[in-house]
Amino acid sequence: MTDTTEFAGVTGTRTGSGGSSDGGAVPRAIIRARELVAPVLLDRIAALGPEMSVLCGYQMGLCDAAGVPTGSCAGKLARPALSLATAAALGARPEAALPGAVAVELVHNFTLLHDDVMDGDRTRRHRPTAWVRFGVPLTVLAGDGLLGLAFEVLGALPAPQSAAAAADLARTLRLLCLGQSDDLTATGRGTIGTEECLRTLEAKTGTLMGWACRVGAALVPGPDGRQEAFERFGSQLGLAFQIQDDLLGIWGLPADTGKPVLADLRARKMTAPVVAALASRTAPARRLAGLYAGPGPLSEEDARLAADLVEEAGGRDWALEAARLWHDRAWENLNALRLPAPGLAELRELTGFLSPCPA
Amino acid sequence: MTDTTEFAGVTGTRTGSGGSSDGGAVPRAIIRARELVAPVLLDRIAALGPEMSVLCGYQMGLCDAAGVPTGSCAGKLARPALSLATAAALGARPEAALPGAVAVELVHNFTLLHDDVMDGDRTRRHRPTAWVRFGVPLTVLAGDGLLGLAFEVLGALPAPQSAAAAADLARTLRLLCLGQSDDLTATGRGTIGTEECLRTLEAKTGTLMGWACRVGAALVPGPDGRQEAFERFGSQLGLAFQIQDDLLGIWGLPADTGKPVLADLRARKMTAPVVAALASRTAPARRLAGLYAGPGPLSEEDARLAADLVEEAGGRDWALEAARLWHDRAWENLNALRLPAPGLAELRELTGFLSPCPA
Repeated sequence: MTDTTEFAGVTGTRTGSGGSSDGGAVPRAIIRARELVAPVLLDRIAALGPEMSVLCGYQMGLCDAAGVPTGSCAGKLARPALSLATAAALGARPEAALPGAVAVELVHNFTLLHDDVMDGDRTRRHRPTAWVRFGVPLTVLAGDGLLGLAFEVLGALPAPQSAAAAADLARTLRLLCLGQSDDLTATGRGTIGTEECLRTLEAKTGTLMGWACRVGAALVPGPDGRQEAFERFGSQLGLAFQIQDDLLGIWGLPADTGKPVLADLRARKMTAPVVAALASRTAPARRLAGLYAGPGPLSEEDARLAADLVEEAGGRDWALEAARLWHDRAWENLNALRLPAPGLAELRELTGFLSPCPA
Repeated sequence: MTDTTEFAGVTGTRTGSGGSSDGGAVPRAIIRARELVAPVLLDRIAALGPEMSVLCGYQMGLCDAAGVPTGSCAGKLARPALSLATAAALGARPEAALPGAVAVELVHNFTLLHDDVMDGDRTRRHRPTAWVRFGVPLTVLAGDGLLGLAFEVLGALPAPQSAAAAADLARTLRLLCLGQSDDLTATGRGTIGTEECLRTLEAKTGTLMGWACRVGAALVPGPDGRQEAFERFGSQLGLAFQIQDDLLGIWGLPADTGKPVLADLRARKMTAPVVAALASRTAPARRLAGLYAGPGPLSEEDARLAADLVEEAGGRDWALEAARLWHDRAWENLNALRLPAPGLAELRELTGFLSPCPA
């Protein structure tokens, strides 16, 4: 239902002094999200009772599986950071968007809990997923609970904002479900084209990041059209970000050891570079299709070969270009609003971090 | 998360000419709910795309597993009927509560889909449950989708009603999750008392039936306090109804063959009569506890013995009395509102049908 993306490079602490493993500093917007959003998350999930709140705290990295607080937050809070930075970009205090930011992170974790059940994924953030640790029943229930909390947070807003925010979330939820449904039923449906791949990525990651920006804009009074512009911005940024993440899933971080990560290839996932490679109808594409046609995971050797074939078939270049394109398109939406540059600084820093325009 | 109750006696058709197998006529409120609510449900679930909408249609009995319309509705639409009858009781046209009634039925089916996954129940309404037929992933997702649709329906209401209705649903959802969490973690926790049993029943059935009445009242403009009174009414009615259903789960319908149904006993479920029997600390209670202590389902013979022991230990009488008590308490809430009798007629007929005051 959502991206399964982690910001592999971020290891920053809540004190704000941390840096990413690739040397870049943690953006101010993310540091602020941790300071503002994490305590509210802890407070809200307590309303779900002891069993569910430990599960949710574990999911969010706020506590361990026994409920002992970690003093940090495993998630990078990228989406709530987008909400807060959107408010700042519109000249408001970031705190104005806090209820929206909290709701966004609650919804994000709802999707992660349910998606891991649906996809049977056993590991997230280097730990067993919630359903592996707490069982499917309580995990499904805790996801439902988080979604309810998100609507409760929005329900506590003043009346006109509250109704609009709840309606926007309901629509977002439907789009997320449609995206996940496509994903679930796509398994074993054979080859998909790059257009369909982009649509799926947009549904998976773009929808929630689009709403993260929209809800930030919705909580700052202003002229019409800004919410829509910010939603498109977030959605296109999400697309760029997910393609970037697909690249990392094959070739790892540039400043890393340089050793290919390959995990997505081993699992024969139809990530953006693979889809583009297969669609090229070249000789390496045909060899790649042969590798992908078999059952079970690819061997290490075959995964390495697959990575080379994706590159030879032009899949890597296509993905690099697509990530750049969608990053630029995202910003075109905001540039049209002619917002004052100082307010945009944090958002620019954040998007550069989330979706670095690839060289 | 909700009751798993079916109105075993109802076989009425959408033409309104059907009757229940125990000879009673289908209440007008239920006939109207089928006429008004079922077409809207069909229309709304289409927004979830082909895969999820077939699953949801199957769940609701609107179509078969291949998507072919049945022309009827497996659910009795008791909860939306409560919403519509509430509006009528307040002197409005029942249609005034239609969006609320639709949302209630969507939420009810969301809880059924997820609960069947959580509880591992394989049969509902004499058919395989949705997860058995369509798999866990799509079933979890379709539940999420139905919940989102419910919020969307409420989001389309005029602004002040919309915000309040969404906030009420969010609170309801949290209570439902808390009730289901108690239920999930209660398994294997040993004996519970009658107080705890009533609390669980209230959380499971009372919460949603309370909201069904509240949302009906919320959509009819009027003085303060009516929503709360109707919520208490629905909640207490739900309790009476669930206890009644627990009785049916052991002894079946009075006008039935007379053969005990026993299913709940075979599964060693802690239904209200069983809990009351065990709490009696009598000799039959101790024998019953011994039967319930073993692993796996009870044999037919042991289940029959268990039914006798529940009766000897006073569990049946306790449940009959409790159902009557909560039915009467429910009506005390409404009587205090001094509503005109003609408007209450349908609601009275409906509650007599759902929770017949036992002789």
